[in-house]
This record gives sequence, structure tokens and C-alpha cells, in this order.
Amino acid sequence: MRVMIVGANGHVGRLLVAQLLAKGDEPIAGLRPDEDGEDWEDQGIAVRRLDLLEKPERIASTFMDAEAIIFAAGSGGRTRDDMTLLIDLDGAVKTMQAAEIAGVHRFLMISMLFAEDRNRWADPLKPLYVAKFYADNWLVHQTHLDYTIVQPGALSFHPGTGKIKSDPLAVGSVPREDVATFLVAALHAPQTIGKTVPLLQGDQSINQVIDQL
Amino acid sequence: MRVMIVGANGHVGRLLVAQLLAKGDEPIAGLRPDEDGEDWEDQGIAVRRLDLLEKPERIASTFMDAEAIIFAAGSGGRTRDDMTLLIDLDGAVKTMQAAEIAGVHRFLMISMLFAEDRNRWADPLKPLYVAKFYADNWLVHQTHLDYTIVQPGALSFHPGTGKIKSDPLAVGSVPREDVATFLVAALHAPQTIGKTVPLLQGDQSINQVIDQL
Repeated sequence: MRVMIVGANGHVGRLLVAQLLAKGDEPIAGLRPDEDGEDWEDQGIAVRRLDLLEKPERIASTFMDAEAIIFAAGSGGRTRDDMTLLIDLDGAVKTMQAAEIAGVHRFLMISMLFAEDRNRWADPLKPLYVAKFYADNWLVHQTHLDYTIVQPGALSFHPGTGKIKSDPLAVGSVPREDVATFLVAALHAPQTIGKTVPLLQGDQSINQVIDQL
Repeated sequence: MRVMIVGANGHVGRLLVAQLLAKGDEPIAGLRPDEDGEDWEDQGIAVRRLDLLEKPERIASTFMDAEAIIFAAGSGGRTRDDMTLLIDLDGAVKTMQAAEIAGVHRFLMISMLFAEDRNRWADPLKPLYVAKFYADNWLVHQTHLDYTIVQPGALSFHPGTGKIKSDPLAVGSVPREDVATFLVAALHAPQTIGKTVPLLQGDQSINQVIDQL
């Protein structure tokens, strides 16, 4: 499947490109105009430049032949706090609108554990939770996209174990590598469409968790 | 009418309290826990303390006998940028949710001109536009409140003229005093329910503009 990864140079984005390639999918690396794309080009991977501060119509022009979009971008690397509003919220929603303009129906969103439960938002991350909450909400209520929202716990750099759980009440962490593996599996699993999936390290295989959705 | 003004110590909030009193309505001054309410108490006006960083249930407890709510709060006076997300967006939405919990159906929102048109968002105010856009959107699409959204142009401190226009394509300013006068009139005009109203200085009376809605 031809898959546009918005934020391909991010920590999860890089893992996604590698895993999609390994599965025989065709990743497209979506990068900001100022980001380095040589790594990808050297591997023969298509690089497209998009700026989430631009209009949806402009973003859509980079999605035209994609069959799915994974939103893996985040303002984390930028310094201005404003970017939480402009990238994590409005940039995410513009990506959804761009997907609709381009006619790309399948949309996978990387959100955060408990994004939908304000009572569980912890303080230093509260602004990011607000952004993720309204972005997820838009995807569910104000688009017709075939969405899957993945809500991982604290992201770790540990190697993936392939073992996860999807317990809406648990707290914990999950390796970024397992988040990427889940997303690649979800892409090919229609039963994940219309689902919001908490994701933590656990003791079930990714396929088991997907089969139970 | 008994009207809770959330943000009664703000520039528009103060004008609202005074004008509601003059019209024979019964304003309730909604203030943050740390704000000075002596002015209001000296005038015999009820003061209630609410914190938009708290849960909707907590906010709702201060709305219990109100017949309408006017959202006139803003993060402008605070220094952390995060407050745009936490107050102007999530605080506004929590106020809506609190109104629904308390069974207060009439809700008047002070938004910004062009909040619904991303193409017209000017740069230094972009983060605030994002917050206002998603707050207004929630009010329209995700509540059952009898809302009126007022979208004033650049707010000035000039004395009110009582003369406005409601042209969705025009640009300009409007005295805060006229915004307050419009809101007080709208409160008693059922035809403003379910309407989003751009507001600029113009040459029509406020009642003329309301009659044309």
C-alpha cells in the first residue's frame, strides 16, 4: 500500500518508514521544507515536502496518489509553545481536511493515552492533551475518514517486544517500535477502522489485540 | 434575567455587568479565585469564584441558578502561552459543558472576527484564532445549547456609538462598549439563537442588525 507518513523524520516516523518497507508497502516520507531527506532518497524512498502551517489545499497536493496517511508529526522539536496549537491541533486537522480533499480515505492518527479523558491529564503535558483531544474529536465527529486512532502510553526507546495490551484503564509505557508495528498491522486490518485504541506494553501479540477489536 | 458573566473583570466583562444592571437584568460576576471582587460586592452584585482550569462539574456548581451565561473570559492577562489552549479553548468548552450540566441553556460567546475562516487568520494572533475556532465549533456542533456567537473585529476602547454592521466580508474595529450593548440586546432577542454574528462599527442600530438576523 502506498502510505504517506506525515512527520517521517520523527522518532516514530522513521520506524514506520522502515517497517512499511520491510512489509512490502510503499512509504512516502512527508517532511517539512527545511528537513533533511537525503537518508530517505538514498534508500530510494519518495520524499514529499509539506508544511502543516499551510492551507489544507496545499497539503492535499502532496497526498494525491497515497492510499493511506499516517499522522506522525508533532511540535515537540520546535521551541515556540504556539506550535502546540498550530501543529498538534490545527496542523492535524488540516491534514485530515487535506486527506478528504485528496480523496485519501484511510487515516491513522498517533494520539496519546487518555487524550479523551480530561480527568487523567497530567500537568506538564496538559496543553498537548488539549491539542490531541480536539484533534481526535475532529477526526471522529467531523470527518468521514476511515480512521484509526492509536493512543500510546509513555513512549520509550526500548526495543519492541511485539507484546502489547489495549486496556483503557491501565497506565504505563510502550516502545515506539511496537507503536509502529501496531500501526503497520492496523493499516491492513479493516476491523481497526473507526476504532480508538489505547496501547501499552503487555502480554498479547499485536494480531491478538487487533483480532479482539 | 439572571446572567453569569464568566470573566467579569475583563474589559468587556466590566461593561457587560454595568449594562445588564442598567437594563434591569441581574448580573452575577464570575471571577477567578485570585481576582479582586470588592468593586462588585460594594455595588451589591453577586460574585462567584470559578477556575476554568477546574473540571466542568466544579464550574457548573457556580452556574446553578443562572438563566444565561456569557463567556467573556480570555487568557490575555496571563503570561504563559499554554493558557491559550487551557483557557481560550478548553476553558471555553468546559464552560459550555458546565452550562449543560447546570441546565443553563442560553449561552453567549465572545469570539473573534473570521474565527471560522482560516485563510483570514493574521499571524501574531494565529494561536488565539485556532483556540476560538475550535471553541466556536464545539458550541455549534457538540452542544445543544441555545447559543449566540459574537465575532467582533479589533476591539477598541472608543466610546460606544450604538451603530454597528454585521458584514461577513468587512474588516475593521468595534468599540468594546458596542459589543457589550449587542450582547445585552441579544440576550433578550430569541432570533439571535443559533446565530454567529460578525460585529463591526457601522451605520445601523443594534436593533436593526438583530431584526435582520
